[in-house]
Amino acid sequence: MFTRYEGAAWEERFLPRLTSKQIKELPKESTLVILPVGAIEQHGPHLPVMTDTLIGEATVTLALEKLKPDARVWLLPPVSYGKSNEHLGLPGTISLSATTLQSVIMDIAESLRLSGFHKLLLFNTHGGNTDLLNVVSREIRIRHDMLVFYLSPSSLGGAEDLMPADELEYGIHGGDYETSIVKAIKPGWVQDQWLVSETPSMTGQKFLTLEGKIRFAWRMADISDSGICGDATQATAAKGSIIQERVTDILAEVFRELSEFEFGDIRAKAEAGAER
Amino acid sequence: MFTRYEGAAWEERFLPRLTSKQIKELPKESTLVILPVGAIEQHGPHLPVMTDTLIGEATVTLALEKLKPDARVWLLPPVSYGKSNEHLGLPGTISLSATTLQSVIMDIAESLRLSGFHKLLLFNTHGGNTDLLNVVSREIRIRHDMLVFYLSPSSLGGAEDLMPADELEYGIHGGDYETSIVKAIKPGWVQDQWLVSETPSMTGQKFLTLEGKIRFAWRMADISDSGICGDATQATAAKGSIIQERVTDILAEVFRELSEFEFGDIRAKAEAGAER
Amino acid sequence: MFTRYEGAAWEERFLPRLTSKQIKELPKESTLVILPVGAIEQHGPHLPVMTDTLIGEATVTLALEKLKPDARVWLLPPVSYGKSNEHLGLPGTISLSATTLQSVIMDIAESLRLSGFHKLLLFNTHGGNTDLLNVVSREIRIRHDMLVFYLSPSSLGGAEDLMPADELEYGIHGGDYETSIVKAIKPGWVQDQWLVSETPSMTGQKFLTLEGKIRFAWRMADISDSGICGDATQATAAKGSIIQERVTDILAEVFRELSEFEFGDIRAKAEAGAER
Amino acid sequence: MFTRYEGAAWEERFLPRLTSKQIKELPKESTLVILPVGAIEQHGPHLPVMTDTLIGEATVTLALEKLKPDARVWLLPPVSYGKSNEHLGLPGTISLSATTLQSVIMDIAESLRLSGFHKLLLFNTHGGNTDLLNVVSREIRIRHDMLVFYLSPSSLGGAEDLMPADELEYGIHGGDYETSIVKAIKPGWVQDQWLVSETPSMTGQKFLTLEGKIRFAWRMADISDSGICGDATQATAAKGSIIQERVTDILAEVFRELSEFEFGDIRAKAEAGAER
Amino acid sequence: MFTRYEGAAWEERFLPRLTSKQIKELPKESTLVILPVGAIEQHGPHLPVMTDTLIGEATVTLALEKLKPDARVWLLPPVSYGKSNEHLGLPGTISLSATTLQSVIMDIAESLRLSGFHKLLLFNTHGGNTDLLNVVSREIRIRHDMLVFYLSPSSLGGAEDLMPADELEYGIHGGDYETSIVKAIKPGWVQDQWLVSETPSMTGQKFLTLEGKIRFAWRMADISDSGICGDATQATAAKGSIIQERVTDILAEVFRELSEFEFGDIRAKAEAGAER
Amino acid sequence: MFTRYEGAAWEERFLPRLTSKQIKELPKESTLVILPVGAIEQHGPHLPVMTDTLIGEATVTLALEKLKPDARVWLLPPVSYGKSNEHLGLPGTISLSATTLQSVIMDIAESLRLSGFHKLLLFNTHGGNTDLLNVVSREIRIRHDMLVFYLSPSSLGGAEDLMPADELEYGIHGGDYETSIVKAIKPGWVQDQWLVSETPSMTGQKFLTLEGKIRFAWRMADISDSGICGDATQATAAKGSIIQERVTDILAEVFRELSEFEFGDIRAKAEAGAER
Repeated sequence: MFTRYEGAAWEERFLPRLTSKQIKELPKESTLVILPVGAIEQHGPHLPVMTDTLIGEATVTLALEKLKPDARVWLLPPVSYGKSNEHLGLPGTISLSATTLQSVIMDIAESLRLSGFHKLLLFNTHGGNTDLLNVVSREIRIRHDMLVFYLSPSSLGGAEDLMPADELEYGIHGGDYETSIVKAIKPGWVQDQWLVSETPSMTGQKFLTLEGKIRFAWRMADISDSGICGDATQATAAKGSIIQERVTDILAEVFRELSEFEFGDIRAKAEAGAER
Repeated sequence: MFTRYEGAAWEERFLPRLTSKQIKELPKESTLVILPVGAIEQHGPHLPVMTDTLIGEATVTLALEKLKPDARVWLLPPVSYGKSNEHLGLPGTISLSATTLQSVIMDIAESLRLSGFHKLLLFNTHGGNTDLLNVVSREIRIRHDMLVFYLSPSSLGGAEDLMPADELEYGIHGGDYETSIVKAIKPGWVQDQWLVSETPSMTGQKFLTLEGKIRFAWRMADISDSGICGDATQATAAKGSIIQERVTDILAEVFRELSEFEFGDIRAKAEAGAER
Repeated sequence: MFTRYEGAAWEERFLPRLTSKQIKELPKESTLVILPVGAIEQHGPHLPVMTDTLIGEATVTLALEKLKPDARVWLLPPVSYGKSNEHLGLPGTISLSATTLQSVIMDIAESLRLSGFHKLLLFNTHGGNTDLLNVVSREIRIRHDMLVFYLSPSSLGGAEDLMPADELEYGIHGGDYETSIVKAIKPGWVQDQWLVSETPSMTGQKFLTLEGKIRFAWRMADISDSGICGDATQATAAKGSIIQERVTDILAEVFRELSEFEFGDIRAKAEAGAER
Repeated sequence: MFTRYEGAAWEERFLPRLTSKQIKELPKESTLVILPVGAIEQHGPHLPVMTDTLIGEATVTLALEKLKPDARVWLLPPVSYGKSNEHLGLPGTISLSATTLQSVIMDIAESLRLSGFHKLLLFNTHGGNTDLLNVVSREIRIRHDMLVFYLSPSSLGGAEDLMPADELEYGIHGGDYETSIVKAIKPGWVQDQWLVSETPSMTGQKFLTLEGKIRFAWRMADISDSGICGDATQATAAKGSIIQERVTDILAEVFRELSEFEFGDIRAKAEAGAER
Repeated sequence: MFTRYEGAAWEERFLPRLTSKQIKELPKESTLVILPVGAIEQHGPHLPVMTDTLIGEATVTLALEKLKPDARVWLLPPVSYGKSNEHLGLPGTISLSATTLQSVIMDIAESLRLSGFHKLLLFNTHGGNTDLLNVVSREIRIRHDMLVFYLSPSSLGGAEDLMPADELEYGIHGGDYETSIVKAIKPGWVQDQWLVSETPSMTGQKFLTLEGKIRFAWRMADISDSGICGDATQATAAKGSIIQERVTDILAEVFRELSEFEFGDIRAKAEAGAER
Repeated sequence: MFTRYEGAAWEERFLPRLTSKQIKELPKESTLVILPVGAIEQHGPHLPVMTDTLIGEATVTLALEKLKPDARVWLLPPVSYGKSNEHLGLPGTISLSATTLQSVIMDIAESLRLSGFHKLLLFNTHGGNTDLLNVVSREIRIRHDMLVFYLSPSSLGGAEDLMPADELEYGIHGGDYETSIVKAIKPGWVQDQWLVSETPSMTGQKFLTLEGKIRFAWRMADISDSGICGDATQATAAKGSIIQERVTDILAEVFRELSEFEFGDIRAKAEAGAER
């Protein structure tokens, strides 16, 4: 389900609108295929369970519209269901297992390779998918000899001047960042009457972090009563719009760079004794 | 990706627009959750590879709009990628393996059960998924104690007076039926200059059939050069619209019946000696 | 365990009585190998749990004896245990999981291919196996490049004038049809003192069916107290014998047709524009 | 497929001739269920590929007939296909993978447990199954809390005075032992014109053995041109009959012992300090 | 294989030197069990293939010796073989698949839980394991209700003033950092005559990075001829010793913190409306 | 963790101390790679849970030091965790599942094959691993075309004159044999104050044995209260040293024989009619 759908410019870049004959005849070199991967999972009392998938769809389609016409970049239907086992059991969370999600991505990649494509971008909007997608990317690289890229649009920043530092670091689920974006792209789906703020306090820990170098595995219920990490009470649609514009400006450039990247671009000869 | 998206009436019935709190508070009895399952696969030179998933989305959303407001029926995001190994290798076919698709459906069902739902309809628009989904339905029934229904809208008819008998029987992939519907719902995605007609001839076989009681397993390339079975040259948007209206009229009634069904409705006492 | 075993004519067609050297030298073209697949599962208080496997053995061997000597048709030992999870927990039900049964059939097919055979018929006598076997057939077609056929002898009819229409439709497990056949082929294994009649009532449902287009997944315990669907009280050995004769007459013809079938027989050239 | 079938006395002990009601009412304590596991695999140019499964059926049924009526011992249909990957590729070998065979046995055991049985004997007639069945036995013991026994009738001897010592040690496949038995139980299935003798020479190895303590993994083709290990040219039906009588005399006693065994029979108290 | 083994002080903290009775009686609260996970993989022409596992063993044992006696911290034998598929095919690389390594860690964790332990640290010294271990950590958290920590000692720094910034960023495999440490702990295993320097040049990429936010999946052979990333020619044992001292000083503190951590330490009450 | 580690002579034969370049240049013919496989599991109140892995390390390294310099024999790091499900739940038992251990061994073998090695010895010191390793050996032989050997040092004897016959037969876990060896190689790890003697009594069984031809699957708790089978109270370090010397004398010869073995050494031509 892509928001901003009917008649939008990005539809030109939507791969499955083409017929098999058209896809066969597409140039495949310097061509990037984008697979959005999201999640359907609880996001507190105020955000829709589709938040991650929704943001992914809105972001990637807006970025595509900023591409120049000659860019060879194609979009696939999203994998709407991700790995959300850290939220499993909370109503509305619909999660694939790690094994299942891995298989889904592997199968799609293999099919793309059989169709002649070589470059795949996993465009991920759910933090709980990240590690698994990195594992899968390497598997695809090795098993199907494809070039596989990974990025999460939220890692591109865009909110540095809009939120306090603490919120930027710990507002990782249902906080100001996500709530602002959903207010911007689908305001009717935010329940303003139930906005909440909750963040675990890591100040007592000298080394341990939520997502840093020394980390621990958590279920959301381990670290939050409300199901969120962050402060949704400060979210505004205006902030969300600014973030989306900034992020998609960058993404348009990124998509171009990835479509043209080859390993030969970065290879340097060993300086000495590099026999093996 | 749902066609007919923005602001449409069915959006009210789109489950993941709700928050976790809202889903928790939904009544669960006499409540049906619908999971569309489609496919991205070659459909000949003239139809988009998204044909099956596209038809599924258009059909289920139109049917939802015909429901009375008090019906307890909810829609999930589609499983856009199906099992299309019979088309694998033909450009644009993106197939999950049987094992992967099974795991996807099982995981979604388990999550729904954990969210409190009891009734699931697998709404399938790709013939290649049918047998697997029937296997999976029983697994869900047993493992997660849910009521699982299955239907394919194309089995509901609606074209009996619009196409010759042969086309109704053998036009199973990319023929008049599917091409007419896509012309009706997404005309810009049909390549009229490449319409084709091809149907295998079973007349030499006394018993063997394509999909009947005595059957054989085929890859599409075994039975067709063009990748289709049927006659796309006779397709019209008008026929497609008629079919869609007829099918969705029925579906609205069906959804209602399924949401209210309980096993107790059909149990009869054994007449004699039913000890065990 | 084949009934009608010792010295019977069909033993000539029993593949594993041959040595490796003999099998190596067999002609492989236009040669059909038959794998019976049955089930060991509860069939109510009156029928043996071996009913499905027993009927399969009796039927296939009788049909083989009706073949002309020059037919190239070979029989394998049966897969006696099927997928009977809809009866699991009821005493005497011995079920393989879906995954296990799939692996069994795939492994046997791969071995046959390595032995030089190309055509395999899955001869199934348990309804609960059907969907899975259809999935597997396609996997074998694709992975091992074999021609795989499927049939269930009960689908060939033969009882139309012997039972009421309702029994023909709903007598799917342990009813008149199966009980009559077991009475004909192995009378000592039917417990006449516990014959039973029980059929779920679908009349309250406008659309929903047990095994039709709009269906639901059931465990036998969901729809029957006695463990059967049908009316065993009307069964007679005479009816069973008539059915067996009729069905095996057809099967002898079918085996011949399948052994000679090639995809080239049904291919027609596309009429127009069939480029891809 | 059981040889010696029709009307034989052992049929009384054939579990699946019973109905679900009868099985429910069976006493379960001190009750042994026997599952024959065999193989369909090349046995040289002279023996049928069914040799192992055939010997298993003949042996177990003969032994059952020697039991006293009050013994609580029941027979299941055989698992006819075993793990024969050491012969894979040689015509007529039909092998399950290790994983598949393991799953088959596990599923059957679980079903038996659900039916109320506690004691299972894996009655194996193919050496290539042995290690796997031992692994599986322990899995069943632990996962399903059953008492699982294992034996291979060929390990019970019976031929010590009938064959030279070398043949007793190395005649492990298709040699005098197996050929004599098949001549005794199914003479028409032995191809006398192609009897062969071939045994690998281990005399150059001080430590290494075929199946002893210091061993190596082999495919049959690694150690034999003809596909056998042993001397089939000396086989006679008379020797086969003697072996069968001796082995089944022992088996009848063994079945009785196993049906009555409980762990409590062998537990001794630790003599000192056995705290844990 | 732990270097610095015989009679060393850390041996006191080596869990499997204890008997079952001793382990049963250990206090389990505030107790940390450490599982080192390494790799056996090519590290260029100059470093042993055991580099990662070797560094892990040396580092963890040295850190344990810096703990105060009352710390409840126990060491397990290492998982010496990791996931090194990015080096597979290069001599000396011995890699587990992602699935296998995941199963190994899951099984060990489950056994620990059954033994009464609650806190596990995955102490990882191979970058190629990181993503997978993060996935596994969450699985263990959810499936076995354990507290699972993750860290890689190389992420703790210690070389900031010893190497140029470029080497700190790109010297990720077989460069100055690892070569210096191996020179310090096992000098005889470094082949000084084959030291090499090779680093891919990412300067042409505006966004793409080796291991950053926008990344691509690589096999080592994609980015390096010599099999390393970094400059081994500048490595010295002196630098290695300094790094090891610094890192293990930190680790001793970290182990203490992790052994005492509980979720309750970081939970804050939601500030507003946190109903769910 | 290898005992007797630092600077020991066997370190020369420790494969992963070599660099990838060195391993590439090693001769591979007549070259044996040894993989020790052990277990971490309860061994009664007196022996460390590392007993099996510890004995394996001590034995293989001592044997390697008795090899002549020109022997082409290399040692791998051990697989320290084995399949110990028969002890699972008893504190300190850390077990891999059968599937996991199989995958570990398969993956290591495949990597060795990719590195150019052809001969692998599975050097096993835990009885619970034996059957599985035999299954795996054959899988490796077939899938990776390697020569795979198996042995358990305890099967080589060496204690015949040191213990009573009963102890030699039934002292299979934590008895005199194992306790004596651990006393010899790691005396500080034996808890002398808790030595125990316990052996199940099989005298009431005419046929059934613990590990013989007619066997049953057991958990240790089925047959022993103390967790051991045997008499640890008679163990002495002196006996342990004698056993170790005897066993390693043999092993040095065995390693040599295995490194030089080829299938061609044992092939004899069939004497008659060996066509196939």
